[in-house]
Amino acid sequence: MKRILTGDTPTGKLHLGHFVGTLENRAKLQNEYEIFILFADTHALTTLSSSPKLIADYTREVLLDNLSVGLDPKNVTFFAESAIPQIYEIAAIFSMYVSHNRALRNPTIKDEIISKGLGDQFSLGFINYPIYQAADILCVKGQLVPVGKDQEAHLEQTREIAREINKLTGFDIFPEPQALIGRVGKLVGTDGNPKMGKSLNNTIYLSDSKEEVEKKVMNMYTDPNRIHPTDPGKVEGNPVFIYLDNFSPGKDKDKIEEYKDKYRKGQVGDVEVKKFLVDVLNEFLGPIRERRETYKNKPDLLASILEEGNSKVRKISTETLEELKQKLGFAF
Amino acid sequence: MKRILTGDTPTGKLHLGHFVGTLENRAKLQNEYEIFILFADTHALTTLSSSPKLIADYTREVLLDNLSVGLDPKNVTFFAESAIPQIYEIAAIFSMYVSHNRALRNPTIKDEIISKGLGDQFSLGFINYPIYQAADILCVKGQLVPVGKDQEAHLEQTREIAREINKLTGFDIFPEPQALIGRVGKLVGTDGNPKMGKSLNNTIYLSDSKEEVEKKVMNMYTDPNRIHPTDPGKVEGNPVFIYLDNFSPGKDKDKIEEYKDKYRKGQVGDVEVKKFLVDVLNEFLGPIRERRETYKNKPDLLASILEEGNSKVRKISTETLEELKQKLGFAF
Repeated sequence: MKRILTGDTPTGKLHLGHFVGTLENRAKLQNEYEIFILFADTHALTTLSSSPKLIADYTREVLLDNLSVGLDPKNVTFFAESAIPQIYEIAAIFSMYVSHNRALRNPTIKDEIISKGLGDQFSLGFINYPIYQAADILCVKGQLVPVGKDQEAHLEQTREIAREINKLTGFDIFPEPQALIGRVGKLVGTDGNPKMGKSLNNTIYLSDSKEEVEKKVMNMYTDPNRIHPTDPGKVEGNPVFIYLDNFSPGKDKDKIEEYKDKYRKGQVGDVEVKKFLVDVLNEFLGPIRERRETYKNKPDLLASILEEGNSKVRKISTETLEELKQKLGFAF
Repeated sequence: MKRILTGDTPTGKLHLGHFVGTLENRAKLQNEYEIFILFADTHALTTLSSSPKLIADYTREVLLDNLSVGLDPKNVTFFAESAIPQIYEIAAIFSMYVSHNRALRNPTIKDEIISKGLGDQFSLGFINYPIYQAADILCVKGQLVPVGKDQEAHLEQTREIAREINKLTGFDIFPEPQALIGRVGKLVGTDGNPKMGKSLNNTIYLSDSKEEVEKKVMNMYTDPNRIHPTDPGKVEGNPVFIYLDNFSPGKDKDKIEEYKDKYRKGQVGDVEVKKFLVDVLNEFLGPIRERRETYKNKPDLLASILEEGNSKVRKISTETLEELKQKLGFAF
């Protein structure tokens, strides 16, 4: 059974965009692969260094989010980066085999410098992202990493490190992790922005209550050119219909097609369609909320799920680190 | 009893220059302070990444060097950086509070970029030196670091990190380590170069045999303008006399003054003075060689000295890391 490494940086709770993007996929993969899910809490300090306590809360929420979509701790190993000191020593060793210039060319680094307008104002932790990512994956010798098609280059750095260390030592210590290209869907935000994101304030969280969902849906962006319910409306690119298509069970298919038809003809108002979406979303979120409640009310269980995963990964990572040090031979 | 952190990067065996520069001082300090001596073996990879096995040998030699000058494992805690994963996690956390630009302004980084002509060709490990140095010192909450007068600025980065973390958390987690400015002597090389260094091939090692010392001394640079033993010679800046002044016991003082006088007057040849220096150095190295032999022939003792120190520092560092994580509060 091949080993998958994936994870979340706990800088916020997970939302419907994450479900479409990764969580749905994880739930499917958990029966075919050995999955390790990392919570990169130390990495989260790159954005939350001045309010570190938030990260602990987010880690708890993100663990709950993962459990609530049906990821089973019997199949999946959850662990926190900060609980595995070996990851950081492995990364430190890797740092000797990655040039500073190469790190600056890493696509994630480049993208974030541009998208966040960092210029030359960033921390050492930020520039070290490539080596921490490589150590996160290789500490458990992850063979596959689920990524979107446009993110394949993000793994190249990790492969380069694995290849160089293997070549230098003459041993196959590390796999060269491959991308598991899946359908990584993107979900439009409630405001029509192509991306749903916490900072855009256009999210529906997996942990939102029925009332929150109703409030957010009723305020959703639809077709800005439509003033009256009798105006012909646009269905394509309309977040309300995109959500209906994404989150309705099969049985609603006919009803959705009917609404689309009526919407185009100006025979149904936004409010009616939105109310239908509220029902669809709350039905979709029903089992997710139920699972969340189960775990949420058992704090000891939640802690033990993470601690069990941490223990397991600490053991594997200690072995990996010892093997790496022994094969490199630099430690007396 | 205040805690001192000092150490060596094991990229070569220690020589007479190290004795004058640091080892002599360490031997004096061991009774007044709690001393931790770090062997920065992972850091040594910044220069020896392609031949890592050399570092293990050098670590062994450097440990022997420290023991041979009379540092007593009962007083001193020896430890290897690579044996303490917690150092690297502490460093990773620090990396979130140090800007990339600030690291590039670190005096050690700046000096090495210039002195080694690195330009922009260096590893991530190299640029991370400031955070690893801070973690090396602060993992044991070192209060004092012996440095030369011109190196005081090298500690500023560590103090900045300590200060920022203390301020952010509202707790005095870390001391702000102070420089213990001592006489950090410099020793001219056997070739007359102001600095003794492995790469300059002008060293006398603490581990050199009597025969090696004799060979090196007989080839030493003296006064280049002096052709015949009857020519008046220069004593000032003459390595032979500098070594005599540094390594002869008090009882030879008169004899050295006599030789200086004769040398100036052209009444004694280089060979005679050099032979005298051979005797002086071998007398100086006598007890050092004896101690070295004791430890060298007990490989288990040597291993257990380091492992005992590693254990002790691992325990302290684990406590430091836990305290840091708990006070920052980012780990769930």
